Amino acid sequence: MKPEGSNSAGEFQPASTSEEYYTGQFEGPEKLLELWFSPSANSVRKQFGPASPDSSLSSSPNGSSLDERQVCYSPNGTSVIDLEREFNDTYPRYGLRTVSRKVWEDMLELVHCQVLNLIKNEQVDSYLLSESSMFVYPHKLILKTCGTTTLLAAVPRIIEIAASLGLEKVWRVFYSRKSFMFPDLQKAPHRNWPDEVAFLDGWFKNGAAYTVGKTNGDHWFLYLTPPQENCLKIEGEIEEESHQHVVDDDDEAEDVTVEILMTELCPKAMEKFYHHPEEDQPDAGPGGKDVERITGLGSIYDNCLTDSFLFTPCGFSLNGLIESNYYTIHVTPEQSCSYASFETNVSLSKGSDLTESLALSKLIKQVTDVFQPGKFTITVFNSQTETHFENIQRHHPESVHTSSHVYTPYHHDRRGNQSRPRSKVEHELESSQPKSVTIHDVKGYRKTDRILYEFDGYNLNFAHFVKRN
Amino acid sequence: MKPEGSNSAGEFQPASTSEEYYTGQFEGPEKLLELWFSPSANSVRKQFGPASPDSSLSSSPNGSSLDERQVCYSPNGTSVIDLEREFNDTYPRYGLRTVSRKVWEDMLELVHCQVLNLIKNEQVDSYLLSESSMFVYPHKLILKTCGTTTLLAAVPRIIEIAASLGLEKVWRVFYSRKSFMFPDLQKAPHRNWPDEVAFLDGWFKNGAAYTVGKTNGDHWFLYLTPPQENCLKIEGEIEEESHQHVVDDDDEAEDVTVEILMTELCPKAMEKFYHHPEEDQPDAGPGGKDVERITGLGSIYDNCLTDSFLFTPCGFSLNGLIESNYYTIHVTPEQSCSYASFETNVSLSKGSDLTESLALSKLIKQVTDVFQPGKFTITVFNSQTETHFENIQRHHPESVHTSSHVYTPYHHDRRGNQSRPRSKVEHELESSQPKSVTIHDVKGYRKTDRILYEFDGYNLNFAHFVKRN
Repeated sequence: MKPEGSNSAGEFQPASTSEEYYTGQFEGPEKLLELWFSPSANSVRKQFGPASPDSSLSSSPNGSSLDERQVCYSPNGTSVIDLEREFNDTYPRYGLRTVSRKVWEDMLELVHCQVLNLIKNEQVDSYLLSESSMFVYPHKLILKTCGTTTLLAAVPRIIEIAASLGLEKVWRVFYSRKSFMFPDLQKAPHRNWPDEVAFLDGWFKNGAAYTVGKTNGDHWFLYLTPPQENCLKIEGEIEEESHQHVVDDDDEAEDVTVEILMTELCPKAMEKFYHHPEEDQPDAGPGGKDVERITGLGSIYDNCLTDSFLFTPCGFSLNGLIESNYYTIHVTPEQSCSYASFETNVSLSKGSDLTESLALSKLIKQVTDVFQPGKFTITVFNSQTETHFENIQRHHPESVHTSSHVYTPYHHDRRGNQSRPRSKVEHELESSQPKSVTIHDVKGYRKTDRILYEFDGYNLNFAHFVKRN
Repeated sequence: MKPEGSNSAGEFQPASTSEEYYTGQFEGPEKLLELWFSPSANSVRKQFGPASPDSSLSSSPNGSSLDERQVCYSPNGTSVIDLEREFNDTYPRYGLRTVSRKVWEDMLELVHCQVLNLIKNEQVDSYLLSESSMFVYPHKLILKTCGTTTLLAAVPRIIEIAASLGLEKVWRVFYSRKSFMFPDLQKAPHRNWPDEVAFLDGWFKNGAAYTVGKTNGDHWFLYLTPPQENCLKIEGEIEEESHQHVVDDDDEAEDVTVEILMTELCPKAMEKFYHHPEEDQPDAGPGGKDVERITGLGSIYDNCLTDSFLFTPCGFSLNGLIESNYYTIHVTPEQSCSYASFETNVSLSKGSDLTESLALSKLIKQVTDVFQPGKFTITVFNSQTETHFENIQRHHPESVHTSSHVYTPYHHDRRGNQSRPRSKVEHELESSQPKSVTIHDVKGYRKTDRILYEFDGYNLNFAHFVKRN
């Protein structure tokens, strides 16, 4: 995606990035922040919603009665009617989804990017930005910005906005990015990874920073906090070791994030991501629809609401919503700095008979076929919902013997509860790899890295591929 | 281990590190280099040995006939008798094991450390150094040095020595170290990780560098090359992508390296690693034997030849040989910079009925009980000798169906041979985790990181533990 230029309707042309200053060095690789203020949308609804939550969740924008609409509760005192007028919809809005577009736009000024368009459904608001995307859930905000944007500069303001709604604690933080192509063009605190980590460590407790992949090749940076009652650093407070926070069963939803980050894209394939006015092609939103159709990128998922943008002279962005999930694509097609990213939190097994690993293979093929990258990186972040022990029990019950008791350590489950001692075999299996998606080989590519991280509540699978000669 | 001071016999007191200059900041964490000039000792024997190798391998130092001793072949023209005189033994010596102690001592001057003692057996020479250890096999050299030694400065000389023997190619390189406690005290090229990587990249092709673990906490650096016909960089040569080199079955031996790197050691437990002349305790070698006995560190393995050293005023080093394997321990007991390392290439399952994972747990307990560290890191490097597919086939043959053929990619085995297409299920299993040791929980400690890397021919398991309050 490339911000310079204006579309034919003249809606967008930020002066600071207009074409005359363009150096041919656009930083496609995005900074990606997830700020979670609560473990789930449901927990925010419970905190701020009415006594009978189920009716509110089932309220439909089409044909909802006034009573149903009244459950659209806003903790900062905005009335239901105001929210309806503000968003021109009747979706039930809690937590961060009660924040007006204007407030987010002001916050995004700190990042140096603008809102191009907003789409939404019952569960999530999707903002297409001049530099990438933002998704707003009741309990979390996902902000992804490319170029020389200063994403982290907005962290204090986002925390302030959430606190004003009553979301005064931060449950988890994830910040990640690929290694920059042009690090010298970045602005503070994004000039280097240690600076970014120092910034985040200034705000959050028990944060862990990682360099994933080859430090002398393509790599990916990750900062995350373990789930905590509140991971915000409070001045003067002594930092304690983190304890896995105990949450209600129904507050926990499975969470997955898949990213496919591609470079050295095929120049021929990139022609589709240039605006062609000579062929009477529209740009902006209508041009985006055009690109969605000719590339197939708009139909990766069924029953999906998409919002896309074709930039002038080139570049493409897409946000898609599928119920409570999103996918987002950003393309910088210029050969000197070609880059495309695909990201989604749609469950891999959703609407598919394939295993998660094979569904991932299919998705990778669908996406890489469009861009034909010289190199790409896959990251799969998934919450652990099944231990290897449970998996073995389910698939190979005969292999779990409980007769031999050699090592019988106490077992702590995900929610911190101690249970009966386990047998040697159980213990061995229990401590083995938790649920993990396998990143298979990709035809025509050589897998040069495969790394698995086990975090509190999450697994991260990382793989890097290079096109075979 | 601490180099300053002299033992009672006055054998060792390097002027540059004598006690008067000691700052209380000794860098215990070692630099560790493995340079492999051939895939196995056997391949070196085949290259340089006599026509009938078996008799040579079975030649015994005790009671070997002159004929048997004559198979002790040295490619650089040193006669059998010279080698016998040089090493005062009749072990069959090939490749690097024909290099005299004097040549290694001169090489070690570049590193700024000295040889304290040499022990050996039929398969390996073990040098105890003023700063850690060196192990010499026919086909590889393992050099581990602590403090402000300049290990990498010796790389060109080691390559030169090997080439003079006819070992002109480098098969693999591993270089690793824990993050330094006092990085500012290090000398070039060890001032920082990027400098070390740049140095290694100057010598070797297709090297991959990793930062393993938290970049804002305890971490570990690793550089390694994939196995290559020759990973030495030749000037003017265009760097190609590496191809897994095909080697004979019997040239491949399973390889494992386990490291336990401990900090914040228990001060009370550290008293055993101080020299106590007031109790008429000897230091140097006899003092080392004393420490071996009172700590149990000399009897971790059965049938083991050990060589140890108690430094004055404190510090301890130990090398142990068990057939073709070694273990080595180095202790810096001072509270201001306490550190202890344990390293071995003894197979985890050797002489044990336990699984490798449980044997690892037992080993970790044995070692950490001696030092009672506040924090420690485990790294387990093991060559892949069994795919998950083979494992599943062996343990759960009923689960491997070959009837469904959805994805049938060609399968390349470890030696680069293409075999028949695999079924969907086979493919899925085949691509899953290869043989991997599980690092279990450790009582009294919190596991804060668990990372698995899959490299060409090797798995690396990394875990970090912090003592519970």
